[in-house]
Amino acid sequence: MNKTGGREIVKISDVAKMAGLSPATVSRVLNNHPYVSEDKKKRVAEAVKKLNYFPNSSAQKLRGQKVDTIAVCMPLLTNPFFAYLLEGIDQAATDAGLQLLVCQTRYEKKKELYYLNLLKSKQVDGIILASIENQWEDIEEYTKHGPVILCNEHCRAANVSQVYLDQVYGGYLGTRYLIESGYNRIAYCRGEYASGLSLERERGYRLAIEEYGLSSREEWVFRNSTDFQSGKQVARNIANMKDKPNAVFTGSDQVAAGIIVEAKRLGFRVPEDLGVIGFDDQPVAEVTVPSLTTIRQPVQEIGKTAMELLIKEFNDELEQPKLVTLPLQLIERASAKQPTN
Amino acid sequence: MNKTGGREIVKISDVAKMAGLSPATVSRVLNNHPYVSEDKKKRVAEAVKKLNYFPNSSAQKLRGQKVDTIAVCMPLLTNPFFAYLLEGIDQAATDAGLQLLVCQTRYEKKKELYYLNLLKSKQVDGIILASIENQWEDIEEYTKHGPVILCNEHCRAANVSQVYLDQVYGGYLGTRYLIESGYNRIAYCRGEYASGLSLERERGYRLAIEEYGLSSREEWVFRNSTDFQSGKQVARNIANMKDKPNAVFTGSDQVAAGIIVEAKRLGFRVPEDLGVIGFDDQPVAEVTVPSLTTIRQPVQEIGKTAMELLIKEFNDELEQPKLVTLPLQLIERASAKQPTN
Repeated sequence: MNKTGGREIVKISDVAKMAGLSPATVSRVLNNHPYVSEDKKKRVAEAVKKLNYFPNSSAQKLRGQKVDTIAVCMPLLTNPFFAYLLEGIDQAATDAGLQLLVCQTRYEKKKELYYLNLLKSKQVDGIILASIENQWEDIEEYTKHGPVILCNEHCRAANVSQVYLDQVYGGYLGTRYLIESGYNRIAYCRGEYASGLSLERERGYRLAIEEYGLSSREEWVFRNSTDFQSGKQVARNIANMKDKPNAVFTGSDQVAAGIIVEAKRLGFRVPEDLGVIGFDDQPVAEVTVPSLTTIRQPVQEIGKTAMELLIKEFNDELEQPKLVTLPLQLIERASAKQPTN
Repeated sequence: MNKTGGREIVKISDVAKMAGLSPATVSRVLNNHPYVSEDKKKRVAEAVKKLNYFPNSSAQKLRGQKVDTIAVCMPLLTNPFFAYLLEGIDQAATDAGLQLLVCQTRYEKKKELYYLNLLKSKQVDGIILASIENQWEDIEEYTKHGPVILCNEHCRAANVSQVYLDQVYGGYLGTRYLIESGYNRIAYCRGEYASGLSLERERGYRLAIEEYGLSSREEWVFRNSTDFQSGKQVARNIANMKDKPNAVFTGSDQVAAGIIVEAKRLGFRVPEDLGVIGFDDQPVAEVTVPSLTTIRQPVQEIGKTAMELLIKEFNDELEQPKLVTLPLQLIERASAKQPTN
């Protein structure tokens, strides 16, 4: 982010260091704030000259009230996880006087590139990506045109600020809970798109399975479960198996709710015959009967933090890309406890 | 839509009429389609000249593959109704090769005007409004800059195409069902924002109450219920009332789900002590126990139809604004039936 054509960009913090002042004071001087002493103005002017400092255009725009529009790319808003993530981003944006344009990529590489192009054509001043459809090498060139923040999904190759969760741990945590509750035949559900995120969770699932000396079966890994209806399908598939799992760890509360509703209709007792764990801790987790044990993602906080990082980019306050990991938490309710085994 | 500065705009259909050809043929001629006879070309050219016809810029843009971006304004995407409405719009847009920019107005007049301005500044080629925050007179001027379609919310004053539901009937339908199921003390929940839509539903509620010679109480009308958590609050309020309603008609399945969960926790039997009806028919309606009787809004169809009308505007295929009303339907489940009274 700090290089343009190979040339190191001087940051406001460099000016502050040389002038022996805080970055905030330097910023006040550069913005012609009235209450700054002549001495400080002089020190800043000298440092600016020596370092050949130019405020970067994004930062300059925000100071000049010209930064106003941020694009947020998300795969699909019918998944409440993304709607709540957007809510966190939008609250922070609104507080900062910024407007959002929300871009549904529908998991399509082409759409993602179309929306990234809004940055290149200066229609937006920055972008928050809540998922990645393209290879990072295809996204990277757009980061030259303005700040890009990654949230929710994590990408090692990306040299931009990121806010994410330890999904391997999430997958491990849910699976271990099921095993320690007495289940020993554990299925796993994820969405159709092999995002880094769902692969990481699957890795956590397998880690726990192996740690406890259990085994999984290929047919117990559902790779096409994204919503309530597909959750119902998972329950039907399980009912038709000869070798049935006795618990399911899902990647979303919507899928888990679908499994519970349909499994009960098919005569399974939940949690006695089938334990179910969700992911997200959405309102529906309180609605299911039995109520849903799930992994809470601090979804609004992810959004808020991503927006705050973007504002820091505009204000030139980040020395280098920042990686923020937020914690996951298991919320114990009633859907994943076997009375005694 | 058809007037600019008081001057009648000549439409492609006028050209077709004068040339004695179909609008599709005229369109082929104007787009230099190869397989059109010289005779037809001549007739179109003459009519164009006589009528002083200029293809409107939106239509021209779509023909020239330049229309590509549509803004969709919605209040808040954490309400799944809007997420599913967006899904209908986005599917139709994607099929037509168009991109959407989604704009959350957060019920703010100012944000709505900001987003309408995208049309004025040519950053988008058309706008679909799924709610109206400003008075129509403040929105109207933007319609000069490109097509605007209204969906979900209905506005008599607006001279643009609209897709909506008969909300008075929806309010009446749900309330009447509760009364005919044996409930006689019926509460009503709506959101904080007095949209035309929620006022219309409230009118339907009062029509049914009056028709059956019942009465309502001021404290039985909840005007701050938009989501799951506020539904829980409604149940707590009802529990604390001296004069309790025995049924609640809500404006959203989320609110209804919150009422059911919390009412059960407080010792109410649903539906025996408290009947509950939702609105929307979202997946959660199958998850509640008892399952939720609700009014189904054909939400994806609303979105799809709105997008199709917008494309017709681009193609200059609408003689005048079109009003489309789609049907509402009561879905009978288990939350609103008293065994016998």
